[in-house]
Amino acid sequence: MISELKKNISCEFLENKEDIYPYAYDTSVALNGVSLPYCVALPETIEDVQKIVKFAIKNNMVIIPRGAGTCHSAGCRVSNDKRKAIIIHFSKMNNIIEIDEKNLTAKVQPNVVLGDLQREIDKFNLFFPPDPSNLEVSTIGGAIALSSSGPRTFKYGQIKNYVLNLKIVNGEGEIVELAKDLRKNVTGFNLCDIFIGTEGTCGIVVEATLKLIPKPAKTKLILAYFKSIEEAGVCVTKILTSNVQPSTLDILDDKTLITIEKFNPTGLYTRYEAALLIELDGENESIQAESKKLQAVLESANAEKIVNTDDEATNENIWRARRSSFACCAKLAPNVVTEDIVVSTSKIPEMIKFIRALSQKYGIMACIMGHAGDGNIHPNFALDLENITQLTNFKKLKDELFKGALKMGGTLSGEHGIGMEKRKYLQDAINPKAHSYMLQIKQIFDPHNIFNPDKAI
Amino acid sequence: MISELKKNISCEFLENKEDIYPYAYDTSVALNGVSLPYCVALPETIEDVQKIVKFAIKNNMVIIPRGAGTCHSAGCRVSNDKRKAIIIHFSKMNNIIEIDEKNLTAKVQPNVVLGDLQREIDKFNLFFPPDPSNLEVSTIGGAIALSSSGPRTFKYGQIKNYVLNLKIVNGEGEIVELAKDLRKNVTGFNLCDIFIGTEGTCGIVVEATLKLIPKPAKTKLILAYFKSIEEAGVCVTKILTSNVQPSTLDILDDKTLITIEKFNPTGLYTRYEAALLIELDGENESIQAESKKLQAVLESANAEKIVNTDDEATNENIWRARRSSFACCAKLAPNVVTEDIVVSTSKIPEMIKFIRALSQKYGIMACIMGHAGDGNIHPNFALDLENITQLTNFKKLKDELFKGALKMGGTLSGEHGIGMEKRKYLQDAINPKAHSYMLQIKQIFDPHNIFNPDKAI
Repeated sequence: MISELKKNISCEFLENKEDIYPYAYDTSVALNGVSLPYCVALPETIEDVQKIVKFAIKNNMVIIPRGAGTCHSAGCRVSNDKRKAIIIHFSKMNNIIEIDEKNLTAKVQPNVVLGDLQREIDKFNLFFPPDPSNLEVSTIGGAIALSSSGPRTFKYGQIKNYVLNLKIVNGEGEIVELAKDLRKNVTGFNLCDIFIGTEGTCGIVVEATLKLIPKPAKTKLILAYFKSIEEAGVCVTKILTSNVQPSTLDILDDKTLITIEKFNPTGLYTRYEAALLIELDGENESIQAESKKLQAVLESANAEKIVNTDDEATNENIWRARRSSFACCAKLAPNVVTEDIVVSTSKIPEMIKFIRALSQKYGIMACIMGHAGDGNIHPNFALDLENITQLTNFKKLKDELFKGALKMGGTLSGEHGIGMEKRKYLQDAINPKAHSYMLQIKQIFDPHNIFNPDKAI
Repeated sequence: MISELKKNISCEFLENKEDIYPYAYDTSVALNGVSLPYCVALPETIEDVQKIVKFAIKNNMVIIPRGAGTCHSAGCRVSNDKRKAIIIHFSKMNNIIEIDEKNLTAKVQPNVVLGDLQREIDKFNLFFPPDPSNLEVSTIGGAIALSSSGPRTFKYGQIKNYVLNLKIVNGEGEIVELAKDLRKNVTGFNLCDIFIGTEGTCGIVVEATLKLIPKPAKTKLILAYFKSIEEAGVCVTKILTSNVQPSTLDILDDKTLITIEKFNPTGLYTRYEAALLIELDGENESIQAESKKLQAVLESANAEKIVNTDDEATNENIWRARRSSFACCAKLAPNVVTEDIVVSTSKIPEMIKFIRALSQKYGIMACIMGHAGDGNIHPNFALDLENITQLTNFKKLKDELFKGALKMGGTLSGEHGIGMEKRKYLQDAINPKAHSYMLQIKQIFDPHNIFNPDKAI
């Protein structure tokens, strides 16, 4: 069959076990083993993608679109579906097609890495706010698939606010443009936003038009340390209602601070139970004014130590440290699993205490951090999955974690998606009718059910 | 039949011709005559709404949800559908259910007026950015139906960024909650955003949870006058790329300035061909810094006169004048029709010149204004529709206007929707497959096709 694929489509295909093996994994932990794809396709053009989709339809195969493979929820792994799976990897469709300086838009191919995009538009003094932690590897296609938005979501909103138009290949192998390259558009239904966050189950993004904004003149980082998680949590609420609008309002617990300092010493203080990492951006004068207000809020919220950083190099260092938290955690034990839950911002202390209790109960270390301003918590669990007791315990822990989040009125994901890992909790997280709508919407885009089966919904 | 409705549902129904007549109209011009609804229902509870929907299904009737009736595109008028129409008016479901200060959210019923909401949350120093011009009458339900976002969209994005959750009554009379009251949520598909902008064709919003943000400390208005539309247009592009982020970047042409001054004297200068109305918001210090930058940009773009307004009363006066442009235009002739098109921001001068040429060609006066920063132009046409020549000419003008916008790569609406008025242009504005997706999505939410037939898609 692969010979027929190769005959009809001129792009490269990987088929040897050693070549396709890495594509069986993403960054989620394969709690239930892994399956190999039939092959990996590396299309170079939209036409290649269309041909691959049509081939899959004809031969009753499935297609798994894959970005950088940083998915934490088994969203781009091969499922137990009985059909053969073609993974499409977009490494050869990674061009910034156009930066339109006059209209503040960028048109990009799916495999453009977010960090590269940032640097490129930076030359024009422009800005694309979504900044997931792994922005040096993760791609725009993946970010759109998972609606990944990162710490700056707090001020700038989610990635949907910056996607003006998508060109997709649908489940019949056709090219469909979902909107137009315009900043406003209420002409028919909003199909772009339907597509964002569908985790590759509805089609393949082959081109995206992004909205850019002027780059903030300056940024300033503030690290505020607290004696207790509760006090840090109360402070989050105080900041939210303080008329200061930071671009980032992240929380890091003591274990996260200690772990970062251990493996990537940056000068973070490790003797406090929690820190808030707050970024202000804008005009220099505005930052100074906001900073003053913020200082008062932090003091009134019993911050024990407040560190202000104005110079870019130190800012960048701290951000690098913050972004390294997952990697540092990974050095604590053979495995690290990062999770993603959302609760109301006012329930952050309750959620963090709950995670700590679970961590203690099951003897699995948790370094907790998150985008506190949005109620989005990412615990990193360090453990040895080859240790059967730990594995068993961890499965129980995860189960309690998700059920607990739902019980608090929260939800299963803020930006990592549902993938295969969390599907079993969906029925408790979504209105049943809403769920049936989602299934029917997938059916519209993908009538042969070839895209990323057993994921997301 | 009305007696059966009344027997089963305790809310008020209007049925006399003189009572229901006003509901046959919205603010669009009835170019093709009007039809009366069968009755108008004034539900008080979600249960009332459910019962009305179920009654309509059983009796093969249609339902038209109606907000303040300010729709410019015949989106809430009775269509030619052969079935009897029940208009649901939500005047008795107009409560702010809750303002959650800790989590910065508000839960509201559909008929809450945007201006009332603004004032209420203002007490908590909070802010809900969407501000369509008619915010003193238009309702949150209507704004969600049309994705109406107003001048501040330029900085703050569209209404979708501020709608966290919707409770709807679907086409089977069931209550469906589309998401959760959380600031981030990637749990299944994004159904809220699918619903926003569907113009009442997919169901009825009975409750919305809105995201609020801290209220900007201060605002400042700048009016910059230009000798020509071209220069004002070039200036828009310069501001867009200047690293200043105004909250509003509107354009007003000479006829708009003159008409406002004639009927609502505010001290606007009327001897220039165009003005940009620019609002900065934020900390006082930041406004001062941005203002300085902006001043330089405006000067470099040949602004002939620049007026800065710092005090709140004058700010408010100018805003009132700007918001009165439609009402002032209405005094120029027996009728006024406002239109809504979008082009790339760089094409604003071209579009304005095109509208002026049409105005001249057909002898119909046009006062042109718009949200220049988003490429969203609203020409107000003043004319006498009882004059057969003017009516005929105006139909031709509109036809050329929409076709011209599409030819420039623009689209039919940025916030007024498609309604009945623009449906015939849809096939040229949307990818045919995308259009078929929209029709199928409506079918999912509304399997009996009872909601607002012949509109939007």
